[in-house]
Amino acid sequence: MPLLELSPSDQYLIASGDTPLLEVWEALPLGLFPPFPPVELPGGLNGLLQRGGFGQTFFFGAEVLGLTLKTPQGRTVQAGGQVVKNVQGYDLVRPFVGSFGALGEAVSVTLRLRPGRASVFLRRPLEPTPEAPSGWPPSYLRERTPPEVGVQPRFLWQHESTLFAFHFGHPKEVERFRQAFGGEVMDSPVDYSRLFPHGMGVGVGPLRDLRFSWADGGAKPPLPAVFQKLASAL
Amino acid sequence: MPLLELSPSDQYLIASGDTPLLEVWEALPLGLFPPFPPVELPGGLNGLLQRGGFGQTFFFGAEVLGLTLKTPQGRTVQAGGQVVKNVQGYDLVRPFVGSFGALGEAVSVTLRLRPGRASVFLRRPLEPTPEAPSGWPPSYLRERTPPEVGVQPRFLWQHESTLFAFHFGHPKEVERFRQAFGGEVMDSPVDYSRLFPHGMGVGVGPLRDLRFSWADGGAKPPLPAVFQKLASAL
Repeated sequence: MPLLELSPSDQYLIASGDTPLLEVWEALPLGLFPPFPPVELPGGLNGLLQRGGFGQTFFFGAEVLGLTLKTPQGRTVQAGGQVVKNVQGYDLVRPFVGSFGALGEAVSVTLRLRPGRASVFLRRPLEPTPEAPSGWPPSYLRERTPPEVGVQPRFLWQHESTLFAFHFGHPKEVERFRQAFGGEVMDSPVDYSRLFPHGMGVGVGPLRDLRFSWADGGAKPPLPAVFQKLASAL
Repeated sequence: MPLLELSPSDQYLIASGDTPLLEVWEALPLGLFPPFPPVELPGGLNGLLQRGGFGQTFFFGAEVLGLTLKTPQGRTVQAGGQVVKNVQGYDLVRPFVGSFGALGEAVSVTLRLRPGRASVFLRRPLEPTPEAPSGWPPSYLRERTPPEVGVQPRFLWQHESTLFAFHFGHPKEVERFRQAFGGEVMDSPVDYSRLFPHGMGVGVGPLRDLRFSWADGGAKPPLPAVFQKLASAL
């Protein structure tokens, strides 16, 4: 049973670390969204958390409410809680997120779900601009427009020369975003896991989000010494 | 020099851990806001971070971009970066926030600043309700309205039987909030530090926010064993 618990009223889910991302999408009721776009990536939820998320334009760590870890020393450790209000301190969830495996494996994961009455999944060719010949990041993300003025999609990424966006929220806002972004509507999720037969890491590769370029068999960012201490203490 | 660096264009500031909160407010240019309301609390920025913030209705940890720590063993450790984009993993900033001193002291702090063309500071008597005789939390926070429908203030707290709110953002949204909240406009910051001559901790006391009730000489939440390991490793 990869999906262990789903609470639409309290807006969270608990799933095993090996749950594929698209299985989470399939299990969710209409109007609730996970903190990742409708794509498959290597390693399921554990892989996603170890890499610090994918494609998000928000702080991913805040969406991970709790974790059960298997530490590098083989210990099982519980971090965080199950409800949003539990974020009260002593935060060992956040260092795991984006730790590229240095702190171990996520055995189970509690994710915050967010409501939205509408959603849209779009793609369009990436346009080169004079300032950024690659066209990346797009101008409406380079400019720091306050959230109430421009519409920033929840997720934005590039695959080869195509730009993808997934957004959800209030129907009017989603529609405004659809018009501003243009392109064509995607009617099904995308499986990117076949792009990474040797693992998904950081490097020159086919996928790009606001944090990294992602490469097959790519690297882990260099581990700071203090983080190494933490890893060996857990 | 408590305020060490201020970058309005990149929207961050760096200040020493002992900087009083209201000194940060005084140093900021019009239209940029820190992740705390215009109040003074014990221990300056270091105290605020150790307690995990005050009054916020958002994830406070995401607003702390970087830290220089003096660890319990007396080492100096750098965590995080200086710019928003730097949140890429290996996150040792977040465990410090809300650690109630277990991981040491913040020597200097890099905070994200957020823009807003308008702001309002309000207070009104706290109304008891049948479900919650104390009237806390207020009904518009108990209901999970999506952010695009209701207006949730950035900061909300209670002092004795008075409810305080501080909000900033788009002028129209701020005005909508002012009308919804009612009460009267505060025209100056509030100094709460005199309420806590024996230190600000968790317990039955005069101040309350969505996370804790705060008491003079109050306690620290119990330290999980795994966090103790982290503290002794740093």
